[in-house]
Amino acid sequence: MFYTDNKLQYPVRVDSPNPVFARALQQAIGGVEGEIRVAMQYFFQACGARGNPKFRDLLMNTAAEELGHIEMLATAVAMNLEGAPLSMKEEMAASDRAVGAIMGGMNLKNLLSSGLSAMPVDSDGVPFDMSHIYASGNIAADMTANVAAESTGRTLAVRLYNMTDDAGMKDMLSYLIARDTMHQNQWLAALEELGGMTGAFPIPNSFPQDQEKTDFSYAYLGFQADGSEPVAGRWSDGQSIDGKGEFTAQPMQPLGEKPDLGAARPQSGAQSEQIGEQ
Amino acid sequence: MFYTDNKLQYPVRVDSPNPVFARALQQAIGGVEGEIRVAMQYFFQACGARGNPKFRDLLMNTAAEELGHIEMLATAVAMNLEGAPLSMKEEMAASDRAVGAIMGGMNLKNLLSSGLSAMPVDSDGVPFDMSHIYASGNIAADMTANVAAESTGRTLAVRLYNMTDDAGMKDMLSYLIARDTMHQNQWLAALEELGGMTGAFPIPNSFPQDQEKTDFSYAYLGFQADGSEPVAGRWSDGQSIDGKGEFTAQPMQPLGEKPDLGAARPQSGAQSEQIGEQ
Amino acid sequence: MFYTDNKLQYPVRVDSPNPVFARALQQAIGGVEGEIRVAMQYFFQACGARGNPKFRDLLMNTAAEELGHIEMLATAVAMNLEGAPLSMKEEMAASDRAVGAIMGGMNLKNLLSSGLSAMPVDSDGVPFDMSHIYASGNIAADMTANVAAESTGRTLAVRLYNMTDDAGMKDMLSYLIARDTMHQNQWLAALEELGGMTGAFPIPNSFPQDQEKTDFSYAYLGFQADGSEPVAGRWSDGQSIDGKGEFTAQPMQPLGEKPDLGAARPQSGAQSEQIGEQ
Amino acid sequence: MFYTDNKLQYPVRVDSPNPVFARALQQAIGGVEGEIRVAMQYFFQACGARGNPKFRDLLMNTAAEELGHIEMLATAVAMNLEGAPLSMKEEMAASDRAVGAIMGGMNLKNLLSSGLSAMPVDSDGVPFDMSHIYASGNIAADMTANVAAESTGRTLAVRLYNMTDDAGMKDMLSYLIARDTMHQNQWLAALEELGGMTGAFPIPNSFPQDQEKTDFSYAYLGFQADGSEPVAGRWSDGQSIDGKGEFTAQPMQPLGEKPDLGAARPQSGAQSEQIGEQ
Amino acid sequence: MFYTDNKLQYPVRVDSPNPVFARALQQAIGGVEGEIRVAMQYFFQACGARGNPKFRDLLMNTAAEELGHIEMLATAVAMNLEGAPLSMKEEMAASDRAVGAIMGGMNLKNLLSSGLSAMPVDSDGVPFDMSHIYASGNIAADMTANVAAESTGRTLAVRLYNMTDDAGMKDMLSYLIARDTMHQNQWLAALEELGGMTGAFPIPNSFPQDQEKTDFSYAYLGFQADGSEPVAGRWSDGQSIDGKGEFTAQPMQPLGEKPDLGAARPQSGAQSEQIGEQ
Amino acid sequence: MFYTDNKLQYPVRVDSPNPVFARALQQAIGGVEGEIRVAMQYFFQACGARGNPKFRDLLMNTAAEELGHIEMLATAVAMNLEGAPLSMKEEMAASDRAVGAIMGGMNLKNLLSSGLSAMPVDSDGVPFDMSHIYASGNIAADMTANVAAESTGRTLAVRLYNMTDDAGMKDMLSYLIARDTMHQNQWLAALEELGGMTGAFPIPNSFPQDQEKTDFSYAYLGFQADGSEPVAGRWSDGQSIDGKGEFTAQPMQPLGEKPDLGAARPQSGAQSEQIGEQ
Repeated sequence: MFYTDNKLQYPVRVDSPNPVFARALQQAIGGVEGEIRVAMQYFFQACGARGNPKFRDLLMNTAAEELGHIEMLATAVAMNLEGAPLSMKEEMAASDRAVGAIMGGMNLKNLLSSGLSAMPVDSDGVPFDMSHIYASGNIAADMTANVAAESTGRTLAVRLYNMTDDAGMKDMLSYLIARDTMHQNQWLAALEELGGMTGAFPIPNSFPQDQEKTDFSYAYLGFQADGSEPVAGRWSDGQSIDGKGEFTAQPMQPLGEKPDLGAARPQSGAQSEQIGEQ
Repeated sequence: MFYTDNKLQYPVRVDSPNPVFARALQQAIGGVEGEIRVAMQYFFQACGARGNPKFRDLLMNTAAEELGHIEMLATAVAMNLEGAPLSMKEEMAASDRAVGAIMGGMNLKNLLSSGLSAMPVDSDGVPFDMSHIYASGNIAADMTANVAAESTGRTLAVRLYNMTDDAGMKDMLSYLIARDTMHQNQWLAALEELGGMTGAFPIPNSFPQDQEKTDFSYAYLGFQADGSEPVAGRWSDGQSIDGKGEFTAQPMQPLGEKPDLGAARPQSGAQSEQIGEQ
Repeated sequence: MFYTDNKLQYPVRVDSPNPVFARALQQAIGGVEGEIRVAMQYFFQACGARGNPKFRDLLMNTAAEELGHIEMLATAVAMNLEGAPLSMKEEMAASDRAVGAIMGGMNLKNLLSSGLSAMPVDSDGVPFDMSHIYASGNIAADMTANVAAESTGRTLAVRLYNMTDDAGMKDMLSYLIARDTMHQNQWLAALEELGGMTGAFPIPNSFPQDQEKTDFSYAYLGFQADGSEPVAGRWSDGQSIDGKGEFTAQPMQPLGEKPDLGAARPQSGAQSEQIGEQ
Repeated sequence: MFYTDNKLQYPVRVDSPNPVFARALQQAIGGVEGEIRVAMQYFFQACGARGNPKFRDLLMNTAAEELGHIEMLATAVAMNLEGAPLSMKEEMAASDRAVGAIMGGMNLKNLLSSGLSAMPVDSDGVPFDMSHIYASGNIAADMTANVAAESTGRTLAVRLYNMTDDAGMKDMLSYLIARDTMHQNQWLAALEELGGMTGAFPIPNSFPQDQEKTDFSYAYLGFQADGSEPVAGRWSDGQSIDGKGEFTAQPMQPLGEKPDLGAARPQSGAQSEQIGEQ
Repeated sequence: MFYTDNKLQYPVRVDSPNPVFARALQQAIGGVEGEIRVAMQYFFQACGARGNPKFRDLLMNTAAEELGHIEMLATAVAMNLEGAPLSMKEEMAASDRAVGAIMGGMNLKNLLSSGLSAMPVDSDGVPFDMSHIYASGNIAADMTANVAAESTGRTLAVRLYNMTDDAGMKDMLSYLIARDTMHQNQWLAALEELGGMTGAFPIPNSFPQDQEKTDFSYAYLGFQADGSEPVAGRWSDGQSIDGKGEFTAQPMQPLGEKPDLGAARPQSGAQSEQIGEQ
Repeated sequence: MFYTDNKLQYPVRVDSPNPVFARALQQAIGGVEGEIRVAMQYFFQACGARGNPKFRDLLMNTAAEELGHIEMLATAVAMNLEGAPLSMKEEMAASDRAVGAIMGGMNLKNLLSSGLSAMPVDSDGVPFDMSHIYASGNIAADMTANVAAESTGRTLAVRLYNMTDDAGMKDMLSYLIARDTMHQNQWLAALEELGGMTGAFPIPNSFPQDQEKTDFSYAYLGFQADGSEPVAGRWSDGQSIDGKGEFTAQPMQPLGEKPDLGAARPQSGAQSEQIGEQ
């Protein structure tokens, strides 16, 4: 169950509203690296968490935090849209610039659909799609998905920070960047509790590895057209990261034959030639 | 540039075709954990890789491998659809079962749209959407996304392995599971080359951390309604995983005020009451 | 800012787990009539609310409630998936039924992607798409969208209630139905505060109606092929509902001409014939 | 069955073609508030209408009208694209402006995909998605969805009217705004025929209300973190709008417990730790 | 401008309602091969047609026909849903079959979302997405897209015809199949008017072919891993179909180098290692 | 199975990087006319090809070619993004232009999401959706889909060629245009092998035409509101293109009645009025 206090988790201040930066901020709301994604991902992972209940608590607690981040960013978008041109006339008067410079550069839906407010869309106006919520029922897979989400999330926040020179926006983003630092560490810490590299991997660790084709479990295979060795690295030599094998490397050969599905069945909607009648 | 030899990377054999299992296999082709996702993800990461060129090579080499996995699975789907009922009449005759048992359980598009062949859709017939291709321009963020992709990918392959009792399908899946073992290790190894936990994190490591609000960089914040401490764990105590701070924990208080966007602008399409005219 | 207490808003009990009903319940989570939709819709409407701040509070308060409904339903889905078959063998053993009866009828992603947990998808496994979040910046338009959302929402909940005979599920749904009753009334009450039928409509009420083509503002136009009058009703006679006009009815005639875009431009990628060169 | 006469319902004239305004108009074609939405929504509602056949007629008649609106807007988009730059060179020559001012501000697919014609996409080029067609099988729910659609539709048309200073476009939009006025009233009138506030609500009115948890049917519940009363209004006091209860208000407490899904099942793809084996 | 007469273009009769066949018919409404697609495709092609106006007329005329096909199919879906189980209890009583056989096999949204009516979705409940409307601004490209649409459309109709043994449904489908026969021929005839194979191709025919790399314009290139010749056929020998060249065949060699994007820029959100600072 | 050699199929050179042109090029990668579409379409058609195996080989060979085209274009996008502004400050300094001119005109995700690299999205940032992969199981329908794909593909490439004046980009595009010339011819040649117009059509040619309503198989029907003849052309007179009938033309009359679905069922979630109880 959720509660609210109507306040912002961290102050949101915009010194010089900028409709193009409002568009950029939309990526942090509704982009695949954005806050809706992490809020809903942690929420659904929590709802499906089986096993030690502390992970459910950890996830739901952080879901609540991320909901507050969406709220902050949505406020920031609305504030950056203050003063945006509502008409071609305003566009020209306010800017002494060519038609299209601001209106063309902002996300028009931020005006036409939402009346100068935020939307659950990315910086190109593409709506967020909930298939990006990874909640696998495997707690370690979920943690790796969360590390990945926070890695792209912090990268995005850094790019936004570098893009703007508005002191208010820089302050807000420096807070969000710090939280992403923590969250990367937090999910890595959870992974450590789950056994770390050698305990948790390969995910899922409940599958008996002797049932996999072990000849290929730690082999770095090459698919170079000239049959040469693939580029060497930590992945081609030494103990595997999960501690359960030794890396090797080799060019790959096809082990199977050319597939042949045979003739099509009558009444399957194929051409007569495919069926063998003519 | 890519080449093909028209052969399968690993043999694909189906002993007892099962249209419902064909539907399940579709998840491994067009699901968000599936092979189109990894093939295209590694491909686009390679195309955008800047810095040390060995990562481009590593990524493109593995993209080529994954293309072959799609080919294997698409063949497996088509083979599992052999003998699927084409009509209500066949459905009843072949199965001595109520109408709907097989036809209702299979993915109808596998019949209606593709004529008993595979499609780039998931097990519910939802087409794969390329927004799932994470290629961030940050090589370490890409590697974490790849570990995550292979973790859910192997989890899916294990579930499929557990679902079927067809010896041919189990053999094919045991190969794919082994490759997922390798690929989890491979991307973790790449992450190790990039500095490992303390070198690569927080991602991006090029952002000067003194510009983030460091008070919040390693604090595990609580959002419990009663103001209690959030659940403790590795994430609330000890050195952070990136080696750059100490974990702390505390309940969070709102630092910002209630947002107030003020009145709506005339001509913005709001109600008169919002504008302040009545 | 949001908080959680990790408890369910209302008890969730499942007496006889049913994977097909789990699939049906998914519609109430990720369907266009579902709880993600209303939670996020009220949230974004709140974030963009301008004018009297009480509407922001009303909206955000109800957003918090709806988040708890998603949590309840996600728990119900997971509980209905208890005991679902993980393999073709279990399917047959547990059910004495033909392969495909349960596995074919359940949402396979609930097994393959989420490991017997809920997902933000509808009853056919289609992910929720955030374009369904209507937050227009016009508070009255938002309220009508909310009445509509709760009308389809309660219709869905009633269908689910009628579908199941599980006492636990009926109890939970009778609570959700009651809340939908309240929410329909709540948003209608907000509309009344905003002036009701004659004050709020036509939405937006800030547009000077003398600027619209008033000949067509209250005319019910007929598009019957034989030029006959369209079907009569309250909409064709008497005072308009917004109190600002009188309904009339008449068959429509085209007022414009056949459009002619002329020739295509050279270099626009058209055929030569379209450009006029040949 | 449908017929056409190839003429426009209302004249479409563009005095000064403007590719950025063409992009804005796309929202009225393929946006969620646009004309494809209402045309297809009324069409599908008509096709599924059960009960009094006059509603089918009403809906299909208006669907025919809306198809003509798409046609008008598509023509307007094509006319606004006349003279749009086809090349970087034209861009510079025609405008004496920096590269990117027009080309960057227009929807590039309007050039690249459709050759200076309209597309079924919104103002950011996002294709219309038919999940926005609400046709619930409940005639009153459909009417509320239609009021909502026309409310956001008229809001959008007003924003477009305010945006342009082209006399031809203003004339066309003043017609469409008038039609939206009528359609809001028309669907409200239909709702009145269906019993109005006290007869039609709560939707569906066929569900026996004694089967819902009536304690919560007219209670405005508070989810404020400090346990305070939620903001008061018409919704917290007095008779409910549907005339079937009295509004009350109160802070909410969790009635359920913390959910516990227990251990994961073996073979479900979870980690060993979740299963309880280690 | 469009008109309706509320009648069906061709009689729709269902002798034995079948909810699973209702699901299959949905593919013909909202599938990518379905009637919404062709109706809207011809409509938008008409709206954007430049050059000889007869093509606009031809397209809009056929768009009107296809709208009537959607209406027929939507009626057929609703009629096939008559008698579908509304509850687990009905499911068992009516069918003497295991729970899940019908309810699991039908599209649950046809019950839960639309109340036993048709929806603009495909046979798996995936909503139609308007990006499938190909309207290129090139009249010959549009005609080829239309031939393709009618080819998959007729294939689908044939599969549905083969699937059912309901005499009413077979009658309706035999009409739709006939119309698809006509429409394939119709668009091929339009292509003939536009110059046929040698006049219309390569599309667009307005591009001066001497500006393309003519060495590669009629060469069938091989991408076989062993450098062998690709499979021979009409495409590797003889005059090209457009009459403007001679087919040749040869294995392909890379003409470009390995791409090198160099180091990442500071402040671009990359890792330090990519930037060259460490 | 696939192989790579890490080289580009054809040289990619950008003389003057242009972030707006990078955005335009994205259409050729992730647009519905783009290279992902053809690569994946030929790949899936190959995987499902039944009948003469030469078509599988032809398709897979060309799929390999198209993969290389994506690689070329992705490289071109990254190169065009060199020097794009990373901040509002750079925007102003580098250009002496108003804020928003470049940043507003480029695809912001190319910066925010991918760090100045290509993405699998179109020129408006909309991700490619795999439902555009047409692989029907009917080899002739697949060939017509391929002709259509290459027709819109070449049209797009020509528009890009016309748009740019960068010599490097023009060179690359002249190669891609030549390949599209070949591919249009190639698929038309395959269609000729399959019997050409009179052998392959109507698709599928395996359906006995005497089972279709032959009265309507070659009749061009008119849907003009005034009952007039539809516009005449090759499609209304003479032998049909498939050689199996004679074209005729006539206005159409409705052959069916007004549909009547009767009352709604109790418990179906309809209003009482629809059910007949009140």
